[in-house]
Amino acid sequence: MRVLIDMDGVIADFDKEFLQRWQNRHPDKAYIPLNERNTFYVKDQYPDDLKPLVVEILLEPGFFREMIPVPGAIAALLEMQRMEMDVFICSSPLSAYKNSTLEKYEWVEINLGYEWTKRVVLTKDKTIVTGDILIDDKPVITGVVNTPLWEHIVYDRPYNRAVNKRRITWGNWKSILEMDHLS
Amino acid sequence: MRVLIDMDGVIADFDKEFLQRWQNRHPDKAYIPLNERNTFYVKDQYPDDLKPLVVEILLEPGFFREMIPVPGAIAALLEMQRMEMDVFICSSPLSAYKNSTLEKYEWVEINLGYEWTKRVVLTKDKTIVTGDILIDDKPVITGVVNTPLWEHIVYDRPYNRAVNKRRITWGNWKSILEMDHLS
Repeated sequence: MRVLIDMDGVIADFDKEFLQRWQNRHPDKAYIPLNERNTFYVKDQYPDDLKPLVVEILLEPGFFREMIPVPGAIAALLEMQRMEMDVFICSSPLSAYKNSTLEKYEWVEINLGYEWTKRVVLTKDKTIVTGDILIDDKPVITGVVNTPLWEHIVYDRPYNRAVNKRRITWGNWKSILEMDHLS
Repeated sequence: MRVLIDMDGVIADFDKEFLQRWQNRHPDKAYIPLNERNTFYVKDQYPDDLKPLVVEILLEPGFFREMIPVPGAIAALLEMQRMEMDVFICSSPLSAYKNSTLEKYEWVEINLGYEWTKRVVLTKDKTIVTGDILIDDKPVITGVVNTPLWEHIVYDRPYNRAVNKRRITWGNWKSILEMDHLS
């Protein structure tokens, strides 16, 4: 089985990293608690006058490198590898690519080890990549291919609850993928 | 038609950039002229005692950003886009990813314009990416998929002449792809 795994919001805790930096930088300003995040892009949930400050944080050096892993994610990936699944980390860099491209590789080296950097696939269009499943928190994934070869399994987040697809977390992935018997 | 296009040796002149830097840095040392390059990896064609100096050049900041384009490559890609082909730039970063990852995006922005950076796909394994053709100078392209969905068309270079596949250059691409009538 070949599994494509998204980074931000799935193995790297984008929202938590953002909120931490936001509260440190702007302790006086309103913020969206993690369990009330209801838009895929964090910027969309902040009022217009704060959006530039949101973007400023996302673009600062270190943001993508320093995200803490989503609990259970690292163990799950190592376990998938042990089960001889072909795992690829399939991530879209920000359009403002300057920091996020290199830092995504650095994140993988720091958190999973150097050999895993060879399993990184950076692409804005995931529909042209093949696999059996794509684990991704983005509600709808579009690109030049209308019917991608993978099944999109939604990594469960408050902002994607309206999506009617199979959903997964690092707490239940083995049963969702029907791999309990292999553990 | 969806076309995947490799970077180094296909649209970015890796060998010329290397040779220029080599001759500037080591004017006293032997070098391999461009038309005598007969190994895919330039390092493999230099004697063992010089290999570390070869690697040093490939790893220095700016190497990947500053390569001059292969003559005709930029015009060809823009023409493909005008013809409404789906073009993706499909490139493998060095295993020593530090400079080459970001610099590949920078190269694309400098030479093709910012919008093209969204068409970059970085992956060590190109067999999991789908397209009708992959234009690549590497003689044999392997990965987890044994029978990739694309046809590998070899970008003609002295070091891949032994390969028995369709071959292409930026001088003849339209006739090879049978698109003369569309020009």
